[in-house]
Amino acid sequence: MATGVDKEIENLTEVIARLPGIGPRSASRLVRELLTTKKDVAKDLVEALNRTLKTVTRCRFCNTLTTEEVCPICADEKRDRTIVCVVETPADAAAIEESVAYKGLYFVLMGRVNSIKGVGPLELGFDRLLERVRDGVVKEVVIATSYTTEGETTAHMLIEALKKHVPEVHVTRLSRGLASGVEVEYTDPATLAATMIERK
Amino acid sequence: MATGVDKEIENLTEVIARLPGIGPRSASRLVRELLTTKKDVAKDLVEALNRTLKTVTRCRFCNTLTTEEVCPICADEKRDRTIVCVVETPADAAAIEESVAYKGLYFVLMGRVNSIKGVGPLELGFDRLLERVRDGVVKEVVIATSYTTEGETTAHMLIEALKKHVPEVHVTRLSRGLASGVEVEYTDPATLAATMIERK
Repeated sequence: MATGVDKEIENLTEVIARLPGIGPRSASRLVRELLTTKKDVAKDLVEALNRTLKTVTRCRFCNTLTTEEVCPICADEKRDRTIVCVVETPADAAAIEESVAYKGLYFVLMGRVNSIKGVGPLELGFDRLLERVRDGVVKEVVIATSYTTEGETTAHMLIEALKKHVPEVHVTRLSRGLASGVEVEYTDPATLAATMIERK
Repeated sequence: MATGVDKEIENLTEVIARLPGIGPRSASRLVRELLTTKKDVAKDLVEALNRTLKTVTRCRFCNTLTTEEVCPICADEKRDRTIVCVVETPADAAAIEESVAYKGLYFVLMGRVNSIKGVGPLELGFDRLLERVRDGVVKEVVIATSYTTEGETTAHMLIEALKKHVPEVHVTRLSRGLASGVEVEYTDPATLAATMIERK
């Protein structure tokens, strides 16, 4: 930051510039708007973020972010409990929900295998998934990782682990209607519906 | 937002999507990161934003955002008090500071004339600028609004007001080295130095 800038405002700008995808220029603009015309948004943000930070946890069934013990999808008695769809992120689950082609449950990895960043089966909760699938109710696991290098590696490792520990459970994968290299989150609902219907 | 999403997290996502320049997809990604790998940033953000919101005010000399009564530039006794540079935003002032070609003071309009949004001389503090310039110390006002339609309108109205109320003060404008349609904030320091040196 330039000299001659108020310290508190400089500090706020630096914190905002640490947010993923926001550079110093955008941070400076955001600060100006948050402290002038968007003060109401700033106040709501402080309140919402503060409250959520205090209560956020992981759903004990599907591992997604939630502020209650069980997330709304896992708590919904109408969902088909014999099928579990494994996704990389909550946004991927939300995209599949929008396709309206799936009525089962989810397991959210909250990431994908990345050996450089040290993200492996342990970090992605493979053990929790296996324990959950072993309940005798689950008949099928649909792997819905993206068809990217990391997504494929993740799928491969998941398939190996499932085959070894719960061979009685049927393992499927979203059909390769997903464009290679494009993430689930950015696929339109119609294509996602096809990937769910034609899963193999 | 999709059904089946935790209410608190959905609310936080909606608040973040209200920030200028952030769409629903980016908001959803930001929330995921803020609640997992970037929890430290989230906590710092709550703290910095909360503290700044409570103390933020306008510098009583230059109108910029500050958390003290007088901003660091106006409080700096080494600055040349005979010259005032009028800019649209604090970011514009910061960009001019980086050019190291200016040692006077500033007046920050915090916007520009926009009749559709109802932003006119009153909203931009023209009266406060005129009062300040009338102190007998100021000899020159440099208008540093951008060469955009709104910037030009603002400059024109400023020149008229200054001529009418403080005819003894010399009014200049940054030389037209600024590329037309490009904002001050995004101009490189060398070009800005030239615009300051060749002001007319």
